[in-house]
Amino acid sequence: MLPKALQDVIEALSVLPGVGERTAERYACFLLKNNREVAERLADALGELHDGVRRCPVSFALTSEHEEMSPYYTDTSRDKTTVLVVEEPLDVYALEKTRGYTGTYHVLGGALSPIDGVTPDKLRIAELLDRVAKDKVAEVIIATNPSVEGESTAIMLTKMLREKFPDLVVTRLARGLPLGVSLEYADQITLAAALSGRTKL
Amino acid sequence: MLPKALQDVIEALSVLPGVGERTAERYACFLLKNNREVAERLADALGELHDGVRRCPVSFALTSEHEEMSPYYTDTSRDKTTVLVVEEPLDVYALEKTRGYTGTYHVLGGALSPIDGVTPDKLRIAELLDRVAKDKVAEVIIATNPSVEGESTAIMLTKMLREKFPDLVVTRLARGLPLGVSLEYADQITLAAALSGRTKL
Repeated sequence: MLPKALQDVIEALSVLPGVGERTAERYACFLLKNNREVAERLADALGELHDGVRRCPVSFALTSEHEEMSPYYTDTSRDKTTVLVVEEPLDVYALEKTRGYTGTYHVLGGALSPIDGVTPDKLRIAELLDRVAKDKVAEVIIATNPSVEGESTAIMLTKMLREKFPDLVVTRLARGLPLGVSLEYADQITLAAALSGRTKL
Repeated sequence: MLPKALQDVIEALSVLPGVGERTAERYACFLLKNNREVAERLADALGELHDGVRRCPVSFALTSEHEEMSPYYTDTSRDKTTVLVVEEPLDVYALEKTRGYTGTYHVLGGALSPIDGVTPDKLRIAELLDRVAKDKVAEVIIATNPSVEGESTAIMLTKMLREKFPDLVVTRLARGLPLGVSLEYADQITLAAALSGRTKL
């Protein structure tokens, strides 16, 4: 018996990750209670989203509509012989915030998860192999997530890269204690990884 | 350095209650990753929201665009001499789900909160007083939230109604143990309310 227009917004919001009916109701009522500009601004932004965001045809990072390729690839000060492989486009921005990386990126578009239908052919692996050959890549840094899916993806990628390019250096991000977290709060697996990956002082 | 179209969506989503930048990023990326239909459906629904939802001029409950007044007011089987007063429009639907109420509603539009600028003149109190006189209301049930703001609103409303209509019955929803929650988990204030409001068996 809710007005249809409100019900439509609630249903459309319910598809967002982690948003149930209650949360969607809360969002919809907030938008209804506020000025119509707030809802319209969101509607306009959503309308532009898919046309305004493109994928770089080489690195598959996000690009704006007026860019042909990702600025992280075209920037000549960046080292094209180092490629950092991530699962999702936003991972690129997380790594850029460190200001410590000057190589290029490659976005896989996910991690292996056969149960969800993500088989190796769904990931941009062939494109990565092509690129390693074409750009004479010297090092591939694997930065998939430290999850079961991310780990399997890393193992498979390493195997494929080693087979095809015996001289290529394949590395992955270090595992260990996150900074600012005291030892007693670290979980066992992280602690075990920190121990086995200990570095000389 | 995020594409502007994505940044715009993130910013527009960040205004939602309880949504920070991280959550907004997650929602935006979900919408970007999915078919454009998902984002467009939400955009369309948002565009219709303010035109498709109106307020009943008597009860201030939500109505669809083709309804002049709330069906909960115009329905002749409903008792217009009983008015249940709630803070927000969605409270009406929560009460309707009980299927136990056959009177009408009055939506105040919030609760007293001088610190947030919600003074008595911002609530639809004058309209309630008019309606009590016009519809010869016999009972007003106050169903504001059991919060500090809701309680102050209830006290003020009771005072105003009693002054103007000495014969009017003013009641409020019972306070006590919620069903399905065992006594040991109930908070002190609820337990105290349950004790002082005990009923004869």
